[in-house]
Amino acid sequence: MDRQPINLATKFEQFSEHWSPKIIAQMNDYQFKLVKFKGEFVWHAHRDTDEVFIVVDGAMTVHLRDGDVLVGPGEMFVVPKGTEHKTSAMSECKVTLVEMAGTVNTGDIVDQKTAPTDVWI
Amino acid sequence: MDRQPINLATKFEQFSEHWSPKIIAQMNDYQFKLVKFKGEFVWHAHRDTDEVFIVVDGAMTVHLRDGDVLVGPGEMFVVPKGTEHKTSAMSECKVTLVEMAGTVNTGDIVDQKTAPTDVWI
Repeated sequence: MDRQPINLATKFEQFSEHWSPKIIAQMNDYQFKLVKFKGEFVWHAHRDTDEVFIVVDGAMTVHLRDGDVLVGPGEMFVVPKGTEHKTSAMSECKVTLVEMAGTVNTGDIVDQKTAPTDVWI
Repeated sequence: MDRQPINLATKFEQFSEHWSPKIIAQMNDYQFKLVKFKGEFVWHAHRDTDEVFIVVDGAMTVHLRDGDVLVGPGEMFVVPKGTEHKTSAMSECKVTLVEMAGTVNTGDIVDQKTAPTDVWI
């Protein structure tokens, strides 16, 4: 077991690319990932898992087929499994994701934004 | 599905007691809970689940049998399943817990600090 706490700000300094989640912790078969959003993602769904977004800095929009949800700093949102969604951010937004290990960022589709699922920082 | 984001600061304003986790979100069979720590908890372990502490405000110590881990604001720590631990905080510390639904705060023991596991705010 690692005896050090995990500092989110320090971890966010370790990467700059957008839309590419980095794993920082594992809890049972779930992972905590940091990601930086800027611009617009692609519509997708995760068939097997809910997905949690916790905004650390900035603001993001979770687009759903029947409306948008603005998520600001210190706020979180849960996208239920199987629900089509798309994320966007006008300016860079720093987010902690919580989801099942192995979850692909683009869900069932493959896109140029599809990122590897096994990168730890 | 709730179309509103969950604001942690607003939720923290809704209770004042210490050591009594309140559920704010569910992801599959896991829950996000807010809790305020002040003083010293009891030694315990969770046989079936890892437990995540994310410090939102203040600082806490996770005591382990072989050493202490100080967790400050913007930091998180994962206590592996089955690992004896005790939490403490000199001043009030606001924490987000992530753990399996139904997890009892005092693990396998019953204590005056044992809290209900089903209180949503």
